[in-house]
Amino acid sequence: MRSHPPDQEHTDDNMLKVEVNLDDTPGEWLGYVMEKLFEAGANDVYYTPIYMKKNRPAVQLQLLCSQQRLEDVKHIILTETTTLGIRYYPITVFRMERRTRVVTTEYGNVTVKEGLQNDIVIKASPEYEDCKQLAETHQVPLKDVYAAVWRILK
Amino acid sequence: MRSHPPDQEHTDDNMLKVEVNLDDTPGEWLGYVMEKLFEAGANDVYYTPIYMKKNRPAVQLQLLCSQQRLEDVKHIILTETTTLGIRYYPITVFRMERRTRVVTTEYGNVTVKEGLQNDIVIKASPEYEDCKQLAETHQVPLKDVYAAVWRILK
Amino acid sequence: MRSHPPDQEHTDDNMLKVEVNLDDTPGEWLGYVMEKLFEAGANDVYYTPIYMKKNRPAVQLQLLCSQQRLEDVKHIILTETTTLGIRYYPITVFRMERRTRVVTTEYGNVTVKEGLQNDIVIKASPEYEDCKQLAETHQVPLKDVYAAVWRILK
Amino acid sequence: MRSHPPDQEHTDDNMLKVEVNLDDTPGEWLGYVMEKLFEAGANDVYYTPIYMKKNRPAVQLQLLCSQQRLEDVKHIILTETTTLGIRYYPITVFRMERRTRVVTTEYGNVTVKEGLQNDIVIKASPEYEDCKQLAETHQVPLKDVYAAVWRILK
Amino acid sequence: MRSHPPDQEHTDDNMLKVEVNLDDTPGEWLGYVMEKLFEAGANDVYYTPIYMKKNRPAVQLQLLCSQQRLEDVKHIILTETTTLGIRYYPITVFRMERRTRVVTTEYGNVTVKEGLQNDIVIKASPEYEDCKQLAETHQVPLKDVYAAVWRILK
Amino acid sequence: MRSHPPDQEHTDDNMLKVEVNLDDTPGEWLGYVMEKLFEAGANDVYYTPIYMKKNRPAVQLQLLCSQQRLEDVKHIILTETTTLGIRYYPITVFRMERRTRVVTTEYGNVTVKEGLQNDIVIKASPEYEDCKQLAETHQVPLKDVYAAVWRILK
Repeated sequence: MRSHPPDQEHTDDNMLKVEVNLDDTPGEWLGYVMEKLFEAGANDVYYTPIYMKKNRPAVQLQLLCSQQRLEDVKHIILTETTTLGIRYYPITVFRMERRTRVVTTEYGNVTVKEGLQNDIVIKASPEYEDCKQLAETHQVPLKDVYAAVWRILK
Repeated sequence: MRSHPPDQEHTDDNMLKVEVNLDDTPGEWLGYVMEKLFEAGANDVYYTPIYMKKNRPAVQLQLLCSQQRLEDVKHIILTETTTLGIRYYPITVFRMERRTRVVTTEYGNVTVKEGLQNDIVIKASPEYEDCKQLAETHQVPLKDVYAAVWRILK
Repeated sequence: MRSHPPDQEHTDDNMLKVEVNLDDTPGEWLGYVMEKLFEAGANDVYYTPIYMKKNRPAVQLQLLCSQQRLEDVKHIILTETTTLGIRYYPITVFRMERRTRVVTTEYGNVTVKEGLQNDIVIKASPEYEDCKQLAETHQVPLKDVYAAVWRILK
Repeated sequence: MRSHPPDQEHTDDNMLKVEVNLDDTPGEWLGYVMEKLFEAGANDVYYTPIYMKKNRPAVQLQLLCSQQRLEDVKHIILTETTTLGIRYYPITVFRMERRTRVVTTEYGNVTVKEGLQNDIVIKASPEYEDCKQLAETHQVPLKDVYAAVWRILK
Repeated sequence: MRSHPPDQEHTDDNMLKVEVNLDDTPGEWLGYVMEKLFEAGANDVYYTPIYMKKNRPAVQLQLLCSQQRLEDVKHIILTETTTLGIRYYPITVFRMERRTRVVTTEYGNVTVKEGLQNDIVIKASPEYEDCKQLAETHQVPLKDVYAAVWRILK
Repeated sequence: MRSHPPDQEHTDDNMLKVEVNLDDTPGEWLGYVMEKLFEAGANDVYYTPIYMKKNRPAVQLQLLCSQQRLEDVKHIILTETTTLGIRYYPITVFRMERRTRVVTTEYGNVTVKEGLQNDIVIKASPEYEDCKQLAETHQVPLKDVYAAVWRILK
């Protein structure tokens, strides 16, 4: 097992929450929009089901990005969806100290993301993509790979 | 207060639940589709938010109709939405004995739908459209009109 | 085809997002509340399904309004729903340059709302109410009317 | 560690899915209704957010019960909610072979429910109530108690 | 009927909305987390269904707390869920003047929370826990107890 | 433009709707489960947000499959999720006559799926994957590619 350098705990005051309500963009396009937004540097992109006027089931797109990314994010939303407007507000983001390490299971290596407080590991998440790949290679259930990691994490 | 003839308690075995998943129909059209389906004799039409493949927020359209209405309902769904298929299954519907009566409140008359078991009224619902109209006429909150009805219902 | 004067692109810093969680207002009243809020000048009103304590499926009401409209909006929420409190926070709204034009389809005229960036039309939405009316007049599917507009929009 | 006698794998053809759409029952009552339905022998009770006509955010109540329980379940729904009708349809339920065993962690004993196929344990779930109680007794995060169980489950 | 001293109408600028997106915390833990957060002094805790990347149905946890409670709330979220970060922003809370009084129904006493504007009671909510207890003691539907209170509230 | 042989209109009585409620499977695994189910021949797989007992936000997995696929589907659900049971019921599926054709836009070729009634094309959907690839190749908004197809579909 080897350790990567830690990401320090910090509070980031430079972030924006961006949101748009969409009642005339087909759902089919929205998976694509999500991809583009991640590529443009959005930290988090997600959809929430909402209900709008005139009995319209609709979707709210929300994302988190830094002030610097706002123009890129706006550009994608305005060109790829049907909205004519965008809303945003500042939001503070606290992030735990993080580090990753690699653990060796019976199926192979899995990167684990750890969260620390006062130098103590208080949580550890196996990387989904690593687990998925091992599950497919070994033709075992995904949850068996996660379980193999958890056993090692003691 | 006057009474209308009662609708007897019964169990209806002739009904169908129809459902369709929609991931490329804009929400804007769906309010319209709902209206058309009610006009075609669907008893109940509603939408549920779902998540489909490829990160698509989508909507499930469900409705209840009699076997005889199926062709009309199918026609509307196939012409007004983007789906290429429709699913359905038989469903049994139990309905309480119902009757309506009119109560006179300080704001005016309101029809009340009552549900009975063994000749006893076990529930009573003021008609929304009546209450709405009185609220608008008298410029009072809708809930004050409902409250006025509830007081009379003893 | 004739053009209306454009609404210029702008960023509005004078807006508020208002929100309320409702776990004891019947859904039946909420369509009414939405109508009243639009009449009071809210720009956008929508509902989100949420889950509150004690296993309560509930609804979050959210809306966007200018600072000047806050008192009117508050008044409606406090008188028409069951809540005892209201939350709000400032939100920035960016709006694209907009203009409307009327296009003539085989079914009749439809207003189209266009969004522009750097004087280029990057999106165009047929007005729902126009399309709906033509669909009903000509007894054709709503989506055929939209399609007729899209063809003209080239 | 001791073992309880197993529940054999079986397919149950005697079950019903019951459902009701509720647009005028306050969310506040619905947690109560859920409790009563479990007490009456419903196997599973859950709520789904739906959108009904006239812009109403609403809730669908669904539950699973045996044919024998239908009358009790109907009685509760009809007396405790505002609906005048109930729908249901037969549903087949497949259940894995199950057994429970008790494992001893550093925090205390936890019952684990196991699912078996061909005599092999393919899944194991620590009982929530046991874990919750140990977390509270020892003042540790709930997830540390689950982790303690998972380690033992090997 | 006796009255408690009123809570005055006020606007509170000292509040925070805290939010976290959770795609790898099992739903089973989230009821527990809600309880802990209320115990730590959060004013309101609720979940919203969201959809995240890679086709993940997920949940957004939101809560309202005072600035002073932030550290306690953060501690619970970081230790009890799987997230590595937390977001928050200031939110203004307006609260109506409130008072409670006790009304005596045919089933027993029920506390009623009243909301006032300009010294006029504009809303009144029976306390759920009181109504629930009376419904259970008298073996009557919960809604009959509410109805009994509403009659007295005139 | 070339045409593929049509899929005839038919009603399929051999289908099952399968459903499972999941309150302890992390959302992170569910995207993976969806993929596996499609690979096993499920026709449609989707998630619905639900609320279960003990304040648990949860997810309902639903899918459509033929009777012949049931065992494969069951196997995946039982091994990849945390559930100990599965429910299903027969469902009738009506499918329109379908055919695909390829249209040539300014960006390249796009397959279009058409739905016919009485030999008349009543709907036409551009294939998402084709449109996506052209949007990426030409660095244009996805909706411009769809629009290009719609223009040709006249």
